[in-house]
Amino acid sequence: MRGAVLYGPRDVRFEERETPKIMKPTDAVIRISATCVCGSDLWPYRGIQPMAQPTPMGHEYCGIVEEVGSAVTRIKPGQFVIGSFFASDNTCPNCQIGYQSSCQQAEFVGGAQAPLLRVPLADGTLVATRDVPSENSIPNLLALSDVMGTGWFTADAANVKPGKTVAVVGGAVGLLGVLSAKQMGAERITAMSRHETRQKLAREFGATDIVTERGDEGVERIKELTNGIGADSALECVGTQQSMMQAIQSTRRGGYVGYVGVPHGVELNVEQLFYAHEHLHGGPAPVRRFLPELIDLVWKGKINPVKGFDLTLPLDQVAEGYRAMDERRAIKVLLRPTR
Amino acid sequence: MRGAVLYGPRDVRFEERETPKIMKPTDAVIRISATCVCGSDLWPYRGIQPMAQPTPMGHEYCGIVEEVGSAVTRIKPGQFVIGSFFASDNTCPNCQIGYQSSCQQAEFVGGAQAPLLRVPLADGTLVATRDVPSENSIPNLLALSDVMGTGWFTADAANVKPGKTVAVVGGAVGLLGVLSAKQMGAERITAMSRHETRQKLAREFGATDIVTERGDEGVERIKELTNGIGADSALECVGTQQSMMQAIQSTRRGGYVGYVGVPHGVELNVEQLFYAHEHLHGGPAPVRRFLPELIDLVWKGKINPVKGFDLTLPLDQVAEGYRAMDERRAIKVLLRPTR
Repeated sequence: MRGAVLYGPRDVRFEERETPKIMKPTDAVIRISATCVCGSDLWPYRGIQPMAQPTPMGHEYCGIVEEVGSAVTRIKPGQFVIGSFFASDNTCPNCQIGYQSSCQQAEFVGGAQAPLLRVPLADGTLVATRDVPSENSIPNLLALSDVMGTGWFTADAANVKPGKTVAVVGGAVGLLGVLSAKQMGAERITAMSRHETRQKLAREFGATDIVTERGDEGVERIKELTNGIGADSALECVGTQQSMMQAIQSTRRGGYVGYVGVPHGVELNVEQLFYAHEHLHGGPAPVRRFLPELIDLVWKGKINPVKGFDLTLPLDQVAEGYRAMDERRAIKVLLRPTR
Repeated sequence: MRGAVLYGPRDVRFEERETPKIMKPTDAVIRISATCVCGSDLWPYRGIQPMAQPTPMGHEYCGIVEEVGSAVTRIKPGQFVIGSFFASDNTCPNCQIGYQSSCQQAEFVGGAQAPLLRVPLADGTLVATRDVPSENSIPNLLALSDVMGTGWFTADAANVKPGKTVAVVGGAVGLLGVLSAKQMGAERITAMSRHETRQKLAREFGATDIVTERGDEGVERIKELTNGIGADSALECVGTQQSMMQAIQSTRRGGYVGYVGVPHGVELNVEQLFYAHEHLHGGPAPVRRFLPELIDLVWKGKINPVKGFDLTLPLDQVAEGYRAMDERRAIKVLLRPTR
């Protein structure tokens, strides 16, 4: 089998890898219907997050179950399934309160940019759709695996409610955060973006306003749009000091910041936070919590996260997918294995 | 009039001060029935928080309204009133969502360790009791002004609910946090304290367990008491790096940290926070939000925060009150003006 392996900065190779197989009785092996490149893949791709060794890439996946281990009872071969980037048993105390990405048995699922993938803890991790979906639905369902699931969690963590004002900082996840906030009934949604194609997509997803300024100026613009008080909720989907501060400062007193951008060197002065009087919640999105509800929304045609993918490539052109995202020629790249 | 003035480290003087009077039409002047020394008064008393000039001290108060300004309509002379350390108009957007300590007109109320006090924005700030209370009830009502109001907010911010587990870090406010958590129905409440009289009081207020260890060892003990997962809620009532980390690390994934200790040089690494998957909320307690409910609880005899005061002194011995708290001979000192 050939799959994507990252060797070092800007060196992704599509090369022969060992074919995944059942290693534990709780595993499943699935045939990937679609996968994609994540904004977080760009941290190691750009060399900002160093790697110890060549690493199989990709953690967003959906597909048909090929085989299950002897202890798997809920998931069956032939089902179409979606899972998250963290495998979870869905029964431990952390899973039970909806934090499956902090499962006591959590295991990162890597190597999804390939035709086949081993998924640990299959019964807990995977959610099957009622039927095998149409080809057209597959990208929508794939999006739930991370970008949409994470966007949704950010909005949930930021307590987005009907009638509220929301400020969104960030790329592809931010765009799906806009879609999530819209779906949750937010009245005013401001996307903070300097990028024209992203602005257009943000508007399609439900943004009512666009702010192109960053830092203090961006915060000032949000204040102007919210009667001087700041947004009820801010969605932080980048993970830099600047984006985090932008989210915190854009939020009103008593408001909520949801943050899902993997933090890189971000430090908070608690005195500043104290007087800001905000709620802060975030972390690796427990996508598994939301999968049943999100699958249902896709199935009923109520959300179309597929628009978040603006470039589709055959899987063997994965390296071009990374380049396109790195060079900001694409917001998010969908990869389809060839049959 | 004579009142407490802090001149510098460990130099509190009870000396002649200008008698407070109505300065704005929205002011009231009240005759103090009781006041006290706050843990946060010890920061400047110990010289850790420098002062620019001699400062009238005290921000916890209740008493009888002597006089009101021409624009005050709700509060009337002769009423017994309680207020918070931040005056608030109770009508601005921040007040309306319950963050009166972030009122757009917020003004710190200082100089309450005196027989008379000017309270700005009287209609928004003060809450009158239905009748003038008995002498015995006065200390209970005074406690609501800060120590109990702040303890209650910490528990509220930490989402304490019936049946939950709670860890509490901190002194007098922490003790009232224990009382609040108990009142809110928490099942297991662990007070973290090395101080025997505080431990005893914590048990009286509803603590089910005491942890005397600090830092990593303290965290380990909390884990042992909570099936290895950590407390559902932690109450941080100190404001140091150690106490903040102790609260964060004692909390389970998906749990809640409420923090009200005024932060002194506290920094958070957001990556650590991200993977801890916690909710963080705090700040200067919006005591005004809770005053009507807390007055009602005191009136019905459901809470007795008075036990939190373990030393009562006449107001003119205020300097001894500071010394007793500084030297940890007292948890919290009640001061009564002589008639």
